[in-house]
Amino acid sequence: MAQDNYFGLDASVAFEGEASRNPLAFRFYDKDRTVMGRRMEDQLRFAVCYWHSFTWPGGDPFGGETFLRPWMQPGEALARAKEKADAAFDLFRILDVPFFSFHDADVSPEGATLAESIRNLNEIADIFEKKMESAKVRLLWGTANLFSHRRYMAGAATNPDPEVFAYACGQVKAALDVTHRLNGANYVCWGGREGYETLLNTDMKRELDQLGRFLSMLVDYKHKIGFDGPILIEPKPKEPTKHQYDFDTATVFAFLQKYDLAKDVKLNLEQNHAILAGHSFDHEVKLAYANDLFGSLDINRGDDLLGWDTDQFAMDVKEMTLVFHEMLKHGGFSTGGLNFDAKIRRQSIDPQDLVIAHVASMDACARALLAAERMLEDKALETPLAERYAGWDKPEYKAVLAGEKTFEEVAEHGLGLQPQPRSGRQELLEGIVNRYV
Amino acid sequence: MAQDNYFGLDASVAFEGEASRNPLAFRFYDKDRTVMGRRMEDQLRFAVCYWHSFTWPGGDPFGGETFLRPWMQPGEALARAKEKADAAFDLFRILDVPFFSFHDADVSPEGATLAESIRNLNEIADIFEKKMESAKVRLLWGTANLFSHRRYMAGAATNPDPEVFAYACGQVKAALDVTHRLNGANYVCWGGREGYETLLNTDMKRELDQLGRFLSMLVDYKHKIGFDGPILIEPKPKEPTKHQYDFDTATVFAFLQKYDLAKDVKLNLEQNHAILAGHSFDHEVKLAYANDLFGSLDINRGDDLLGWDTDQFAMDVKEMTLVFHEMLKHGGFSTGGLNFDAKIRRQSIDPQDLVIAHVASMDACARALLAAERMLEDKALETPLAERYAGWDKPEYKAVLAGEKTFEEVAEHGLGLQPQPRSGRQELLEGIVNRYV
Amino acid sequence: MAQDNYFGLDASVAFEGEASRNPLAFRFYDKDRTVMGRRMEDQLRFAVCYWHSFTWPGGDPFGGETFLRPWMQPGEALARAKEKADAAFDLFRILDVPFFSFHDADVSPEGATLAESIRNLNEIADIFEKKMESAKVRLLWGTANLFSHRRYMAGAATNPDPEVFAYACGQVKAALDVTHRLNGANYVCWGGREGYETLLNTDMKRELDQLGRFLSMLVDYKHKIGFDGPILIEPKPKEPTKHQYDFDTATVFAFLQKYDLAKDVKLNLEQNHAILAGHSFDHEVKLAYANDLFGSLDINRGDDLLGWDTDQFAMDVKEMTLVFHEMLKHGGFSTGGLNFDAKIRRQSIDPQDLVIAHVASMDACARALLAAERMLEDKALETPLAERYAGWDKPEYKAVLAGEKTFEEVAEHGLGLQPQPRSGRQELLEGIVNRYV
Amino acid sequence: MAQDNYFGLDASVAFEGEASRNPLAFRFYDKDRTVMGRRMEDQLRFAVCYWHSFTWPGGDPFGGETFLRPWMQPGEALARAKEKADAAFDLFRILDVPFFSFHDADVSPEGATLAESIRNLNEIADIFEKKMESAKVRLLWGTANLFSHRRYMAGAATNPDPEVFAYACGQVKAALDVTHRLNGANYVCWGGREGYETLLNTDMKRELDQLGRFLSMLVDYKHKIGFDGPILIEPKPKEPTKHQYDFDTATVFAFLQKYDLAKDVKLNLEQNHAILAGHSFDHEVKLAYANDLFGSLDINRGDDLLGWDTDQFAMDVKEMTLVFHEMLKHGGFSTGGLNFDAKIRRQSIDPQDLVIAHVASMDACARALLAAERMLEDKALETPLAERYAGWDKPEYKAVLAGEKTFEEVAEHGLGLQPQPRSGRQELLEGIVNRYV
Repeated sequence: MAQDNYFGLDASVAFEGEASRNPLAFRFYDKDRTVMGRRMEDQLRFAVCYWHSFTWPGGDPFGGETFLRPWMQPGEALARAKEKADAAFDLFRILDVPFFSFHDADVSPEGATLAESIRNLNEIADIFEKKMESAKVRLLWGTANLFSHRRYMAGAATNPDPEVFAYACGQVKAALDVTHRLNGANYVCWGGREGYETLLNTDMKRELDQLGRFLSMLVDYKHKIGFDGPILIEPKPKEPTKHQYDFDTATVFAFLQKYDLAKDVKLNLEQNHAILAGHSFDHEVKLAYANDLFGSLDINRGDDLLGWDTDQFAMDVKEMTLVFHEMLKHGGFSTGGLNFDAKIRRQSIDPQDLVIAHVASMDACARALLAAERMLEDKALETPLAERYAGWDKPEYKAVLAGEKTFEEVAEHGLGLQPQPRSGRQELLEGIVNRYV
Repeated sequence: MAQDNYFGLDASVAFEGEASRNPLAFRFYDKDRTVMGRRMEDQLRFAVCYWHSFTWPGGDPFGGETFLRPWMQPGEALARAKEKADAAFDLFRILDVPFFSFHDADVSPEGATLAESIRNLNEIADIFEKKMESAKVRLLWGTANLFSHRRYMAGAATNPDPEVFAYACGQVKAALDVTHRLNGANYVCWGGREGYETLLNTDMKRELDQLGRFLSMLVDYKHKIGFDGPILIEPKPKEPTKHQYDFDTATVFAFLQKYDLAKDVKLNLEQNHAILAGHSFDHEVKLAYANDLFGSLDINRGDDLLGWDTDQFAMDVKEMTLVFHEMLKHGGFSTGGLNFDAKIRRQSIDPQDLVIAHVASMDACARALLAAERMLEDKALETPLAERYAGWDKPEYKAVLAGEKTFEEVAEHGLGLQPQPRSGRQELLEGIVNRYV
Repeated sequence: MAQDNYFGLDASVAFEGEASRNPLAFRFYDKDRTVMGRRMEDQLRFAVCYWHSFTWPGGDPFGGETFLRPWMQPGEALARAKEKADAAFDLFRILDVPFFSFHDADVSPEGATLAESIRNLNEIADIFEKKMESAKVRLLWGTANLFSHRRYMAGAATNPDPEVFAYACGQVKAALDVTHRLNGANYVCWGGREGYETLLNTDMKRELDQLGRFLSMLVDYKHKIGFDGPILIEPKPKEPTKHQYDFDTATVFAFLQKYDLAKDVKLNLEQNHAILAGHSFDHEVKLAYANDLFGSLDINRGDDLLGWDTDQFAMDVKEMTLVFHEMLKHGGFSTGGLNFDAKIRRQSIDPQDLVIAHVASMDACARALLAAERMLEDKALETPLAERYAGWDKPEYKAVLAGEKTFEEVAEHGLGLQPQPRSGRQELLEGIVNRYV
Repeated sequence: MAQDNYFGLDASVAFEGEASRNPLAFRFYDKDRTVMGRRMEDQLRFAVCYWHSFTWPGGDPFGGETFLRPWMQPGEALARAKEKADAAFDLFRILDVPFFSFHDADVSPEGATLAESIRNLNEIADIFEKKMESAKVRLLWGTANLFSHRRYMAGAATNPDPEVFAYACGQVKAALDVTHRLNGANYVCWGGREGYETLLNTDMKRELDQLGRFLSMLVDYKHKIGFDGPILIEPKPKEPTKHQYDFDTATVFAFLQKYDLAKDVKLNLEQNHAILAGHSFDHEVKLAYANDLFGSLDINRGDDLLGWDTDQFAMDVKEMTLVFHEMLKHGGFSTGGLNFDAKIRRQSIDPQDLVIAHVASMDACARALLAAERMLEDKALETPLAERYAGWDKPEYKAVLAGEKTFEEVAEHGLGLQPQPRSGRQELLEGIVNRYV
């Protein structure tokens, strides 16, 4: 079967409405429906990722390839990469998604030298450019894989060997250049090996300084070439390393402040990384917005009972409703989108499993978006929230927050008070959320 | 039995040397022995805490009092508080520790009003002052309990009700005043309820602003009264709340930078809090030093297989060796110390169990300190560390870190490189550590 | 306010249908609606528990009472117990639930001797008996609290002290006798302290033998008095102890087989205990059914990000749908029911919060039951499951499972095969489930 | 470099005593020293495993090969397998270990058919047989890899496809035959994919019946061919699958009882699997002994802060001391041994790192063994344990445990008691253990 009909589907997946029982149709994702003033497609901004969907063979630490994708079989590397691109763009067409995303290493083969790797990347970028002329799909973000090759086993920017640092600069420059020429909306840095396996051999302070320098230089370069999109950091606490420096939103916020990068660098958040760090997805998103760091979302789910990244397709409507509620409150995505950093299970070996998984998850997202819209329209959570903090609207307390009172003054005032606690009404609010999802 | 001989021990615990089998003697803690230029007592700066050792009755969420301490039985509150103080100072004498620590609510009863509570606190402080004239023990730090009373169920500084905020100011002012007059070396803020139970009813951004304001005012006040010690924040990720704002070192660092508090506020770190946040104790300590935030240590241990704060007496020599190694590298404690935020198991109901637990843990600490000293003297870890990063000492790479190169320049340089990975030698280093502990 | 109108609600909560926005009305729980051949009330068999709802004051390890229930204030103990019973039966009326449940210690005060405690229990049982004449509510199960008093700090049946074992027999006999006279449908043993804090002081083999003996004697006694209901063990892996012997379903199954108790002892399963043990709720229920051990359910939810028992009101419709799907497949509850072993958050201090929490969770359960019914009617999961295992229906493979083939025969047969893997279709199935919830 | 001198070490690693600083010498492992009546070598019975040390290329889920072992490079498969065997036997010689272990797939290449795979295996077995004539090393156990090939992606014995079951029988028969002819002391079954990814597509009851049948047939076959060693099951809760049927010791005990296999099947326990299941290593070992299921140990360690199998070289002397204490109490290993199911970190890329890791871990084990011996000689834990349970030695309580009393009798006895709790003395015991390690 030709790679451009690898999935055996001539037509794109269509919206059939909630009553449909067709796993290859949308029940909620109705791209032209208006949600909070934008088309649903423009609110959700779905992207299919290259790595899980086209580059991962189905292996895990205890077993090898299960999918047997034709383009992963032995053969001339660049030719295989082109077959892969055909299959990928065919899936983009079938799903009718507005975006895709990739690492350099996903799309083109490693060369014998960095220069050759970059030539390979650009050769595939030429093909992408041509395909994107006719295809609808655009590039949500590009990124460089600085973790798979053994040269990066001890990190890229944080490597004890400065030659690796320099090599990484070379690789990232090429990846950003390609992202720029393909009009990518963002550029992502995932620091998968920027961390440590053991503190016994690690100078954490020095390595963080290296990382700060790397990003500062990258930000300068981005401005120089006129790349408008933000640089996005993707927090993850661990895996592959024991500890990663971009542990979670708060940790990255500390880092960005220290190295004065908070204006140019934002966050790409992911549910599975959030829970590995001990946070809810909602928490990470709210904290990012609270500190003006929100950028984009990797949309997947982890398994609450497992301690590694399972990157499953997101199916939990309630969880996403709360996230989209926050996002819509802030006016929706700017440059970001919902990137399917999700992989089908390695037993899902039929080509159409990949289509079905995206469809089911896009539908769960769409349903969540609609629920979030209704919650916002009803101010279902906003009204009780405003009531709860209403005391702070009094002038004397506004003055406290404004820094117009001393500790002694407020303490003196406190001496005369007998504050009475009020119900947090958690179960009431949980019941309210259940009405919407 | 009189409370000042509650433990039935007339003499202080003595150093008997490694061969001793007496659980009421020290095998390693030889207070006058010189370690890295200071007396061991001055390096370790042990403090006994009031709350676990004298205020906790032995209960847990499924069961009540087990210890039956006389001073916790029904009776006139202030009289009971004085009996408790007698027992506490007797333990300080028996253990011959240089410091103690307390919350306001540990030492004196809650009054009907805040003013009355403060009077009670000061009455006990008078007693402490007198006892401290003759006793050796000093105050490592004082703090205010802003989490046990129901008024604080939704937080203190982060409460939705500004009256609670004001009340907390009143209470903290009194606690800091008492700490100051007792010549406390530090003042600690543990934000046990500064967090949330559910995001559904929480405005995280606003609450963090409240907390920033509270601490800013407190820092101003501290300077005003001439309190020299630092304000210490004690990170903990969760428990009692689902999520606490002072999650870990990195989170607090982000917060302190945002509210411009990093100069005056430092960290009080704890092993059990570290592991609940997904970090090693060592990690938290190193990260604090890397960002000039190290203040003091709560010394205990958690159970790696349990998801709550067990606050067990620290007994793991290897873990503490690595922490003390880092501490000694930085010259040892400044204002901080090793505070026994540790509680005996609720089945350890004999009075002497409390003595034995402290002795065993002090000894484990002393043994770790000696191991750390030997490791530093041998540069057992320092030499391999320096070798690993030696490449960065070359002038061209120093220039990179100094910000003298552009991204394009380094990228161009990287194009010509083929970096060769070198062994991380983790097992070798682990074997080396095992030689010392 | 009189305790029999503590909640300020004269009428019972009514079914108003899905469109209702009234937090004191049911949207899905329509008790007389027929679901799989039974009234919804008879399928769900809800029980309100005494301990969380009437005996817990709102404390946690870091703070005390928040609810200020009148019956928990100082006063004559038995009088207070009667006020509590008035309030409890009023809630049963308001919620119109068919069952309740209690520990001996929840309903009546501890006496100076065991004999006095038993007299107190029987005095309250008299009151219950009278109330139950007119009230609709019945007893789902009774149990004895063998974990709160300090005598049980090292376990009850597994205590190193045989006097505690004997005392526990006395207490359990009285609790079972009362359960029997109140026509309880089951009797529950929760082994909250049957476990250990440290293996250093524990003879695990001996303690398990003690527990086996205790239950064997109890089963004999149950038969002797003609108590028809099963004895239920409630697995929980930890908390309050570091390790509990009734860790999970599989562990209890091993225990019951070893001591030949599997015929008379079944399981009371709980979501929060399941996840603390590393299992999904669904898993525990399926494993119990697979081994003919299913008894009853404690219905609550834990927090996936916290390591302790939060016992929150169950609100996750999808999770419960899968559990009820399994239950309905097996014909629904026999003696068991859905016991609300759930507590409102300690900030939910308004009396009506307790009503609202039950209503919201009952509704989530009802919605899940209806979803499970539809899934079963459609054979939405059953049909793909049967297809997946269809190969085993062939006679030659049935013979293998029936024990009619030797290893060598099957191995020889295997030599000629090239088995081809088939898709596990996980994402398809997840999408199907999402259609129903 | 020839594979038989791949490590560049002509001499075996020697014992140099505690003062040695040579990472290629033993400080504690003195093989001929007598410990509890056996030579240290015969007590510890170390085995080097093939899979981590010779078959794993250094990859993880985010990166590929780092070690670049010559025998893993492209080439004729059987020739490469022979080079690997040369290197392996050279390491056995260098470490002077008495045992090794392997999966079929570790040592010989997969063929186009099962028959060809088996021929390959036997060809390598011939080589092993010849090498073992002159080498000291013996086979601790063999096993079959039923998890890496895609045919096993949904399990082997528990596969929904009976052809996979039959294929697995063929493969296991060959692996057991080879183990038998090489005089293996045990045969191991690790059920790495005997479990599920999702319950939505799983009939757990049926799959467990399949597994029971498989093992019953295997036990019959083992007896038929006169294989004396036990079949060992290796519990692991998860990874690679979401849930594995051999979750932990208790779960396997339940399974073995149900299918009447407890006489012939024992356990191979591992620290990393224990902690992933929520247990201490010590717990699993004690529970196995308590139920007469102890077989052998995989010796490694996990990372308490990570949720996956890290299989690091064991270095924690205290943890192992407690395990060996239990083992020595029961007379030491019978057929089992300490199998190094441990892998060097993927950054440990120097060939000698593999030697150094084994040496450091063997030394940690030896040190623990000596500590356990001293603890047993002193009855340091045994004496307090006996005292704690002494009450049960009274005739009236022995009668209870012997089943000679009814519940009513014991309950009646309990009515007259006022049991007084005694201290659990945990901190005292922890201090005692610290004296020995």
